[in-house]
Amino acid sequence: MTPEEFRRHGYAMIDLIADYRQNIEQRGVQPTTVPGEIKAALPVSPPESAEPFEQIMGDVEKLIMPGLLHWQHPSFFGFFPSNVELSSVLGDCLSTGLGVVGLSWQSSPALTEIEEVTTDWLRDMIGLSREWSGVIQDSASISTLVALISARERSSQYALMHDGLQDRGAPLIVYTSAHAHSSVNKAAILAGFGQNNIRTVATDERNAMSPQALAQAIEQDLAAGNRPCVVIATTGTTAAMAIDPLDAIGELTQRHGLWLHVDSAMAGAAMILPECRALWRGIENADSMVLNPHKWLGAAFDCSVYYVRDPEHLIRIMTTNPSYLQSNADGQVRNYRDWRISLGSRFRALKLWFLIREQGVSGLQARLRRDLANARWLAEQIEGSAHWKLVAAPALQTLCIRHEPPGLNGEALDKHTRAWAEELNQSGRAYVTPAILDDRWMVRVSIGALGTERQHVEGLWALLQSLVTEMPAK
Amino acid sequence: MTPEEFRRHGYAMIDLIADYRQNIEQRGVQPTTVPGEIKAALPVSPPESAEPFEQIMGDVEKLIMPGLLHWQHPSFFGFFPSNVELSSVLGDCLSTGLGVVGLSWQSSPALTEIEEVTTDWLRDMIGLSREWSGVIQDSASISTLVALISARERSSQYALMHDGLQDRGAPLIVYTSAHAHSSVNKAAILAGFGQNNIRTVATDERNAMSPQALAQAIEQDLAAGNRPCVVIATTGTTAAMAIDPLDAIGELTQRHGLWLHVDSAMAGAAMILPECRALWRGIENADSMVLNPHKWLGAAFDCSVYYVRDPEHLIRIMTTNPSYLQSNADGQVRNYRDWRISLGSRFRALKLWFLIREQGVSGLQARLRRDLANARWLAEQIEGSAHWKLVAAPALQTLCIRHEPPGLNGEALDKHTRAWAEELNQSGRAYVTPAILDDRWMVRVSIGALGTERQHVEGLWALLQSLVTEMPAK
Ligand SMILES: Cc1ncc(COP(=O)(O)O)c(C=O)c1O
Ligand SMILES: Cc1ncc(COP(=O)(O)O)c(C=O)c1O
Repeated sequence: MTPEEFRRHGYAMIDLIADYRQNIEQRGVQPTTVPGEIKAALPVSPPESAEPFEQIMGDVEKLIMPGLLHWQHPSFFGFFPSNVELSSVLGDCLSTGLGVVGLSWQSSPALTEIEEVTTDWLRDMIGLSREWSGVIQDSASISTLVALISARERSSQYALMHDGLQDRGAPLIVYTSAHAHSSVNKAAILAGFGQNNIRTVATDERNAMSPQALAQAIEQDLAAGNRPCVVIATTGTTAAMAIDPLDAIGELTQRHGLWLHVDSAMAGAAMILPECRALWRGIENADSMVLNPHKWLGAAFDCSVYYVRDPEHLIRIMTTNPSYLQSNADGQVRNYRDWRISLGSRFRALKLWFLIREQGVSGLQARLRRDLANARWLAEQIEGSAHWKLVAAPALQTLCIRHEPPGLNGEALDKHTRAWAEELNQSGRAYVTPAILDDRWMVRVSIGALGTERQHVEGLWALLQSLVTEMPAK
Repeated sequence: MTPEEFRRHGYAMIDLIADYRQNIEQRGVQPTTVPGEIKAALPVSPPESAEPFEQIMGDVEKLIMPGLLHWQHPSFFGFFPSNVELSSVLGDCLSTGLGVVGLSWQSSPALTEIEEVTTDWLRDMIGLSREWSGVIQDSASISTLVALISARERSSQYALMHDGLQDRGAPLIVYTSAHAHSSVNKAAILAGFGQNNIRTVATDERNAMSPQALAQAIEQDLAAGNRPCVVIATTGTTAAMAIDPLDAIGELTQRHGLWLHVDSAMAGAAMILPECRALWRGIENADSMVLNPHKWLGAAFDCSVYYVRDPEHLIRIMTTNPSYLQSNADGQVRNYRDWRISLGSRFRALKLWFLIREQGVSGLQARLRRDLANARWLAEQIEGSAHWKLVAAPALQTLCIRHEPPGLNGEALDKHTRAWAEELNQSGRAYVTPAILDDRWMVRVSIGALGTERQHVEGLWALLQSLVTEMPAK
């Protein structure tokens, strides 16, 4: 494609994206595609000759668009908000168009320095001290894996340079709670700890990790001759947005010399609001923290920021220095390859840099406050309605709700919950995510898509009420 | 930013990218930025209020553009070609603009099915059998880490579900060569094997892994009671583009039940040319393979495809199934979260799908053949010139060259090599990567940027010759 053709098709692509955003409410939130349908509509073999670009765009209209769950829809209340501010779209397109690669500072100085500046800005925005330094990763899963490996190597005094986890020492132990995100357990087993060496610490009535239970678990392991290594606490769990108490947990990790990693992938964004920061009091006791600006904050996916207090430790584990990556600037600059697992990287900072500048801190704060107010409004409606219930104390912008008609409980209640959630999603008029809490299904309503205004939350509430009234008698 | 503002700024962004490509030869390949310069030009704190978009774009012009190494420049011969076809830019912009997230099939059916179709197409294009299935990752580093973990778990019969690598069994051993990419050793130590359990198998005069030496190393470990686990072979090493002999290596891994992972991150693209496939004869004996379409092939960064023969094994290790990710479609569809470490993912397949369709297989083949012919031409010039030398047998599109004036050797020769390479890069007229081979510095000339035509290679050759003639007497 020549630059001139690119101009033409590029304008059309910009229009497609603008139109998509402008008219998104005309679409059902959830597609009606059935498994295998899109695949079956495409040739099994690649095209031998070039296809006209119009033909590709035709397939985008015909196959892709009807096959999407619309995360940017104002009535999307599923999973978590994965907002993409349009300014951030442009920052990301610029990254793609420039086609530069981060391998070392030298392989694109601006890529490195803008990442430094932007992660420093974000650190200040969420009220962390300047003791922290950040690096952009693709996902919280990877950030947490890096944290677990960092903990493993600190506890084992860099066994990776010797026998690794195969050193036949006493086992290193990981502590987390049943409410931690599934990526935490996955990262721990991938890092080699083994399922038997992961302790699921009990949670309290607010679904938060109990420091007493944690203290006990650590003591038990010490008594058994094991080596307590790392605690993964979550501020903002996935199912119920529970907040583990970092101050009490941090006191324990400091006392016993454990690594403390904080998964704030979703809720970390809220810390740009000073009024929310009490939620993670004690964060300065942590060794590492992850926050995904690609969720609620509005940076284009993928953009997960991993913060550490001791970058020297991280670098010691992650460094590689083959001759083909050396340069004269080494020693004076950050080489971000030594801060992450991947060698090459996109110019990921651009999308976050564009977002923060185009919105300003106050713009981002105003939007998040709008979402919190919308969530409070819906929580009040639920609390004030017969048979509707908040099944977890509402925190931030996620509500865990259930409709509990008289006489319905146990599996019958589960069936009812899943039925109305399914009907809601099938209607295309809104989208929610059912999940299990305390062994029972409930429905998560995650408020905060970019376009979600009060009217959309009101619409959801009306829809919920009419759905359960119209449902066939159980 | 409203959709209407987005149209206006979006058109300007498309123009910026088109102009960048059109006029890139007016820029020096390497920037003149000094460490810290860009960072110093930016405020230490984030902007409280929104900034006009024009102001952000002003900083792009003023700070970013002069701070880039221009990978898309036709005289870029550094590292590896990281080509971004303009059609692929548009596929990637579409991914960003749609803002959908892959968590499960249900979270965006098209995202999943296009990834299946596109990785199947690519598999056919490189001549692999239909026994293989692919998944798109961000980097070869991560793909190789996944391969190592997969090997670890096969050898240990899924110890991750029990004591992990902390099971006090005999150590699992990794085999690779000194010519493997630095990401291989890094992945092995991150996966917990430990440096002491990584064997560096000797290489032959073509820098390829010696199957005899590998056989011997395996025997020694068996005799010592260790557990040989995995061989990482490379087809297309980074320094010298050496090709490890997969048929002989595969024979050994099959015999001893070892995992064979093939790093074809760079050179795998060449396998779209049937005439190159003899280079990886034996590939069907491998268990996993990685190829980066974001390198020579032309897909926008980041796009690394990981192929496996036994997806069930991969899924067994990577699967997570919390309630909030379950859906009715499970069982009938691929949930790619179970194929990789990261949970969420972009719609990465679009950029590869756009590329293959817009270029056609024949278009991609023609471009790669052009690059191979250009490399052969330069190799002939070097071979035919006094004092210039190819220090590795030329393979594919990478040449390892040295200028060896009479009487110069040892460290003096190193000094000379690094001096002319530095002068070349400083000139801004071309860009190359010096590296060490057989303990001596040489210069890698990696041919194959999208815009690189014969004239640019001729220009490089003229520049090289004039540089060394004009250099101060040693
Ligand atoms: C608390 C929490 N941790 C981790 C994750 C995983 O994030 P990622 O998809 O970036 O790996 C999520 C969201 O999906 C989350 O909400
Ligand atoms: C042979 C080989 N393996 C691995 C890599 C690492 O690739 P990535 O940056 O995708 O991790 C490269 C290139 O940088 C390579 O050439």
